[in-house]
Amino acid sequence: MRITRYIVITLAAATFLTGQGMHRETAERMKDRGLSTLDSYEMLKELTGTIGHRLSGSDGYEKAVLWSQRRLKEAGADSVWTEPVMVPRWVRGPVEKAFARSGGKNHELTVCALGGTVGTEKKGVTGRVIEVRSFDDVRALGESAKGAVLFFNRPFDRTRVNTGEAYGGAVNQRGSGAIEAAKVGAVGVIVRSMTNAMDDEPHTGAMRYDSAVPKIPAAAVSTMDAEMLSALLKKDPGTTVTIQLSAQSHPDVLSSNVIGEIRGSEFPEQIVLVGGHLDSWDKGTGAHDDGSGVAQSIEVIKLMKALGLRPKRTIRVVLFANEENGLKGALAYASRDANVRERHIAAIESDAGGFLPRGFGISADSIKFGKLTQYASLLDVVGAGKITAGGGGADIGPLKPFGTALIGLSPESQRYFDYHHSNHDTIDKVHPRELELGAIAMAILSWAIAQDGL
Amino acid sequence: MRITRYIVITLAAATFLTGQGMHRETAERMKDRGLSTLDSYEMLKELTGTIGHRLSGSDGYEKAVLWSQRRLKEAGADSVWTEPVMVPRWVRGPVEKAFARSGGKNHELTVCALGGTVGTEKKGVTGRVIEVRSFDDVRALGESAKGAVLFFNRPFDRTRVNTGEAYGGAVNQRGSGAIEAAKVGAVGVIVRSMTNAMDDEPHTGAMRYDSAVPKIPAAAVSTMDAEMLSALLKKDPGTTVTIQLSAQSHPDVLSSNVIGEIRGSEFPEQIVLVGGHLDSWDKGTGAHDDGSGVAQSIEVIKLMKALGLRPKRTIRVVLFANEENGLKGALAYASRDANVRERHIAAIESDAGGFLPRGFGISADSIKFGKLTQYASLLDVVGAGKITAGGGGADIGPLKPFGTALIGLSPESQRYFDYHHSNHDTIDKVHPRELELGAIAMAILSWAIAQDGL
Repeated sequence: MRITRYIVITLAAATFLTGQGMHRETAERMKDRGLSTLDSYEMLKELTGTIGHRLSGSDGYEKAVLWSQRRLKEAGADSVWTEPVMVPRWVRGPVEKAFARSGGKNHELTVCALGGTVGTEKKGVTGRVIEVRSFDDVRALGESAKGAVLFFNRPFDRTRVNTGEAYGGAVNQRGSGAIEAAKVGAVGVIVRSMTNAMDDEPHTGAMRYDSAVPKIPAAAVSTMDAEMLSALLKKDPGTTVTIQLSAQSHPDVLSSNVIGEIRGSEFPEQIVLVGGHLDSWDKGTGAHDDGSGVAQSIEVIKLMKALGLRPKRTIRVVLFANEENGLKGALAYASRDANVRERHIAAIESDAGGFLPRGFGISADSIKFGKLTQYASLLDVVGAGKITAGGGGADIGPLKPFGTALIGLSPESQRYFDYHHSNHDTIDKVHPRELELGAIAMAILSWAIAQDGL
Repeated sequence: MRITRYIVITLAAATFLTGQGMHRETAERMKDRGLSTLDSYEMLKELTGTIGHRLSGSDGYEKAVLWSQRRLKEAGADSVWTEPVMVPRWVRGPVEKAFARSGGKNHELTVCALGGTVGTEKKGVTGRVIEVRSFDDVRALGESAKGAVLFFNRPFDRTRVNTGEAYGGAVNQRGSGAIEAAKVGAVGVIVRSMTNAMDDEPHTGAMRYDSAVPKIPAAAVSTMDAEMLSALLKKDPGTTVTIQLSAQSHPDVLSSNVIGEIRGSEFPEQIVLVGGHLDSWDKGTGAHDDGSGVAQSIEVIKLMKALGLRPKRTIRVVLFANEENGLKGALAYASRDANVRERHIAAIESDAGGFLPRGFGISADSIKFGKLTQYASLLDVVGAGKITAGGGGADIGPLKPFGTALIGLSPESQRYFDYHHSNHDTIDKVHPRELELGAIAMAILSWAIAQDGL
């Protein structure tokens, strides 16, 4: 009995090693092809250059739907289709201004509307500014906040090496600041931009309302002006701020997820999903967020077809609608009827920027996690062998109930929030080889899973 | 006997673990302080902004000698001094032009003189262009190369993930191309710039002559113009190129290495060297190459002093003269009389750019290498835990005969050669946090070695 078991284990190990060996040659071919052609960059350049930004409900988004279908077909996908989804339509409008007033003088502030905010009357809303750093601070204000504009100014924790952690530690101010401020009677909020960069660029992003309290206008202010406003307040606690926004929410509109796949030769109903989100904010051109994930995902198919590879399991690219302000594309995808007969064994998302890949973060049970960590040395072909526990992506998160292994590409994080959700998120901030190395890493991992199962 | 030995090993392990634990707290403090202040970036900004480039023998270099002494004192070094070294003085001069002539038309080429080249007469040298990719190609030309201008156009191997390897595979064209070309009677050489980037920027760098053959002028051409010239040659093999250079070599001049240290409290004669080179090419401002290494090295001392740390062994910053075109600073340092009584146990060099650190490359015997790899998890505090065999740096290489462990900081390599030795190597290409993370990694490693010995 023990001998039999020993043999089985040895055979299994041998098979696995052979598999690794075969994958290694494929990985090397993917690397050589990818780094020679840099097709992901060429696609991203076209997407950002000819279409630009693509907020849900905008013409830009619908152009991107057509563009990505064409590109998936050109890449060689066996089939390409769209799936419908209703998405919100919020429009920034031409006016987003603010100024502080102190000692009879006006100080213009560089601001932008937060995504989803209500607009203001033409004259704007004006109130005494109160600087806060936390929701505890807000609650402590009580009655004194009535009629005020709350200024959320808790910066990123710069000592975090991973800037995503710093973002996570600050972003509740943007997401829920208007709700908490409205609870104590404030008339508007100004939120310090979510970035480590010290510059004069405001960063937008999603914010929420709560039907139990009034909807008050919310704007992001550049970090430089946040520092200036804070200094002004120290000298003159009576400083007021006026916010003028022309933002408007419109009824939901019909839109689409875009899907393309290479059908598996042996187990076509088993899916390895690869994706990112096709929408972006309406600042910059969404080059890193998440044009990079879109281009890299299409490149996964392009690389495989160019090398004449047919996977045993289906490799499916899903370009999700509406990640930025609703996640409606992801929710619609997870609730498809087809998911009953199909089985998503793994989903790999790239939505942390097109920077140099270091590895993948994985949320899965320990058996699957253990299996996936064995691909570390394979992924080191492109230096992306750092497998860590936890991670995934907003769009693939809703697949969790299916037992799908959720896998997020982990690129370098230092520069991401310098550009994120701002006019700085443009193609010149993307390095062709760094972007492509991420695409190759995704291709290697999705290929290995499609061949070996999970 | 076996029991005794077991106890000894256990105690040693316990001591080591305690040491790791203590180092961990120090490493965290270094990280928090470094990322909060970003002093390395502030220093690099001042060095590149107020002094600019600093080629050996130039005023810029001597200003950098004064600047770095002041900065080392301000950082809190116990002592700061210079050591003399004679260095070459090569001056580019105002003229570096070239044009191709084909079908009666001139095509200007974007070129720059390679470092060390002779100049030309005012009218330049003109010859039929012959494109070559290797020294074998050159030898095969034989007599037909007489009077020609050889055009070395072997590009970087783009499939190399590590761009340093691609550089290593191409750079002999720049270093020895003029020698090989002169052997077959060529009158000049044009060398494709050493970069993966496709743009119109020429990259300089060192080239050599051989006293056995004539010194012929050598220039680098931008990658875009290399492609253009190659295309032109395919249409018209009779294309000529004219090169005009005003470069001149002058007699050697007296210069200095700059040194500052924190003296060890227990074993002051044992040295952990931390350094980079203070000279740069005369293009751009040497921000990555090697202003970054200079600023990071001074920051090592600044971090330790700011945190009130005194190492058991001496931590010495050495800023080497003349790495780019002679290595005279490094050779002088390795031949100091003082090296007889001092013992350099380890030397850490940063000369691969101020990009995000991934780890360290180490050249040492296996016992020392094994000891140093145990610091991997400690270095992971700043994500720099990838310890690889091989590596070091040009300036610390001459210390090898002393048994010194030679350690090179390994930053991300994708962007380095986009800027290297060109007008693009400026402060805007350096990310403050990425630079600082490298400095912190060097501080952590030098501290651990200084406490534990090697």
